[in-house]
Amino acid sequence: MKKIEARKLKGFADYSGTTMSLRSQIMEEVRRAASEAGFIALQTPALEYAEVLLGEGGETDKQVFMWEDNGGRSVALRYDLTVPFARFVAENGNLQMPYKRYQIGDVWRAEKPQKGRFREFCQCDFDIIGADTLSADFEVILAIMKVLTRLNKGTFTMTLGHRDVLGGLLKVFLPDVFQSPNGESACLIVIDKLDKIGPEKVVNELSLISGATREGAQDLLALLQKRDGEGSDLAAIKASLVSDEVATAALGRLESLLDLVKAIDMPLSVKLVADLKIARGLAYYTGVVFETTLDSLPSFGSVSSGGRYDQLTQRFVDRELPGVGGSIGLDRLVAAFEELGVLENTKRAGVFVVLASQGLESWAFQAAEFFRAQGVLCEVSLKPSKLAKQFALADKMNRAYAMVIGEEENSSQTVTLKDLSSGEQHSKLSLKDALKLLKPEL
Amino acid sequence: MKKIEARKLKGFADYSGTTMSLRSQIMEEVRRAASEAGFIALQTPALEYAEVLLGEGGETDKQVFMWEDNGGRSVALRYDLTVPFARFVAENGNLQMPYKRYQIGDVWRAEKPQKGRFREFCQCDFDIIGADTLSADFEVILAIMKVLTRLNKGTFTMTLGHRDVLGGLLKVFLPDVFQSPNGESACLIVIDKLDKIGPEKVVNELSLISGATREGAQDLLALLQKRDGEGSDLAAIKASLVSDEVATAALGRLESLLDLVKAIDMPLSVKLVADLKIARGLAYYTGVVFETTLDSLPSFGSVSSGGRYDQLTQRFVDRELPGVGGSIGLDRLVAAFEELGVLENTKRAGVFVVLASQGLESWAFQAAEFFRAQGVLCEVSLKPSKLAKQFALADKMNRAYAMVIGEEENSSQTVTLKDLSSGEQHSKLSLKDALKLLKPEL
Repeated sequence: MKKIEARKLKGFADYSGTTMSLRSQIMEEVRRAASEAGFIALQTPALEYAEVLLGEGGETDKQVFMWEDNGGRSVALRYDLTVPFARFVAENGNLQMPYKRYQIGDVWRAEKPQKGRFREFCQCDFDIIGADTLSADFEVILAIMKVLTRLNKGTFTMTLGHRDVLGGLLKVFLPDVFQSPNGESACLIVIDKLDKIGPEKVVNELSLISGATREGAQDLLALLQKRDGEGSDLAAIKASLVSDEVATAALGRLESLLDLVKAIDMPLSVKLVADLKIARGLAYYTGVVFETTLDSLPSFGSVSSGGRYDQLTQRFVDRELPGVGGSIGLDRLVAAFEELGVLENTKRAGVFVVLASQGLESWAFQAAEFFRAQGVLCEVSLKPSKLAKQFALADKMNRAYAMVIGEEENSSQTVTLKDLSSGEQHSKLSLKDALKLLKPEL
Repeated sequence: MKKIEARKLKGFADYSGTTMSLRSQIMEEVRRAASEAGFIALQTPALEYAEVLLGEGGETDKQVFMWEDNGGRSVALRYDLTVPFARFVAENGNLQMPYKRYQIGDVWRAEKPQKGRFREFCQCDFDIIGADTLSADFEVILAIMKVLTRLNKGTFTMTLGHRDVLGGLLKVFLPDVFQSPNGESACLIVIDKLDKIGPEKVVNELSLISGATREGAQDLLALLQKRDGEGSDLAAIKASLVSDEVATAALGRLESLLDLVKAIDMPLSVKLVADLKIARGLAYYTGVVFETTLDSLPSFGSVSSGGRYDQLTQRFVDRELPGVGGSIGLDRLVAAFEELGVLENTKRAGVFVVLASQGLESWAFQAAEFFRAQGVLCEVSLKPSKLAKQFALADKMNRAYAMVIGEEENSSQTVTLKDLSSGEQHSKLSLKDALKLLKPEL
């Protein structure tokens, strides 16, 4: 029989072992941060009508997995969790607003696979619909900060920008780009590349945009790169904006967010810093935007990002539904931690039940279930083999104890425990006495 | 601007509220049963090369979502978690055997959508590779039984069959069907429809298979339907098999499984019953097979099924890798529970933080984070509105307490708590005193 090659598609991965443990830990922290702040769990389909997803992602549109299904419908795999959420909100007119949801789910993008970039990756999203307020922005940012802090694997910097402040600065320095309909977004796309291509190339690219002047681009870049302590020089920016009320109010929101974080009485391993050059690639953002990098691995790029998107649902419905959301790129974060080598080795734990002969399965499983019901990991040997081989397997599986079931244990309804670190053996214990050794805290 | 219709594809669903809570609860119990028995978490991609998935699912092949990607590769969404697991095992030659994994993940089938049948649905799978033993079969069955029992929402019947016993019976009653290469599997497909189309039609359809006699089909059906107590009449079946060693050994394995379950000292809400007519549609099963129905809703069909598949990895590699696995159809189970009306209404819980005016966000979030860190659900009002309106929202959100933050609370660093059931109010409590009310168990 011709064999089929056992292989995965490029950009797709299997997860198990320590990687999978870390993934589970992150998901658990997301669920915890969500539930303590009242974010409701939501799950939407992986597959949507293509028209529902397309047209909002800007650059992302090209990366959508899309095809015609057997019913002739144009369908697509979601490339984020935000657009499907907007569809959900538009479809359900009766949601109690403000509506806070979180979602953990895979998304798919036909990107060029590279280190830390996959074609299938898991996102953990927090979103709030129906409140264009400081508190809503803060609640999303805070949830993400708590998750990253509780993982206890490194420190992060979250940079915070605002589309309206950047828009205000464009009006000051490159006013004529607004004469063409895509002039502003063309500028944002170029500015967003600053970290990648450097200020000189950004100035060059900006100058090519219709209506822009080289001098204006240089002045803008100089202002965006001006620092006051760790963040943008907000005083200088405020001075430039003078009579622009929208942009000044936006800057005020930004400063209030920085103040709220400072006031929180909690050790956070995420530092919030204003950086007005942050624009974010996705076309749907309208207000605050943010991205987050690991301090010891900034080159890995953003592991968590988001922002305010006040017009996203308007593709579907006429209702005004302001939204704000943030996403933790779970697989990028895990890849970054792996790169740093901070994944924990598993410690010895649990019990491996060794069977001295066949026919002892019944007592072995009765004993195992007794311990399992108390939360003890208890693995039963599944293949008859010599005792030495079973002990070796118990050791390889990193179990703390081997539990031997032989004829004597079977007839006396006892178990023999062997501590695999010390070699110490306790013969023919009752289940209760064995439990005292396995779980002394009980 | 032309609006896009906010709609989902047929057979796809959004999950939130009580449905999502139940889904999370089931996943949690799956994780618990898995980890106490040492099943390792695994995640494989949603998308695979089509050739990896196709050809093993029998009837299922037609339902696979499949297309050509931009790179000209024929790709498909997984229709179960078992075939990708076989690919994983074949691809990773260094796994420590026996290898026990569990996986929770969505799968996709282009089935006709109907009650309890979706095109996207979540499966929770337990599998063991590398051990063709009674213990391995039992470990999988036991894990599923524990999950269903711990949900505490109903009683189940798990029917247990064996492909080799059924094969042995076919050799006795319809020996000439084995002359054509697909004769045996054609018979299995027909017998599998017994519950749907009834014995007469099964006899008719069997008679049409090349080599089959009407008489043989009738005798076989009579034997398969013969009952001894709640299950198949195993003594009568054993008598028919006489000199067939393979089939007799298979029957012995089946009886041992029934005995093991009986010996387990644990109240199980799943009854295990032998039923030799169970064949299961999927072509890859080779040994024990089982399916599970909810006693109060048998018409809903199987909510959990599985079996032994000893040749599945041989599509990829020559190594002998016997496997056994079982799957809980999470969304079918949830749909069944919804049909029964056993979903719990949410009780009053947590705190809603009411803000008397703007500018109090800082103290509100400081207080909220104090309680959240202690595990108290604490939701902060996100939109400035009149006090009465915020209290009404707190009530609508089913919170147990409203926590008022006004100017006085802000300046004295206190909070005012109002019990939303009794109306009782506690003014200007320190955070510690408030916590005593919110979490008296601390």
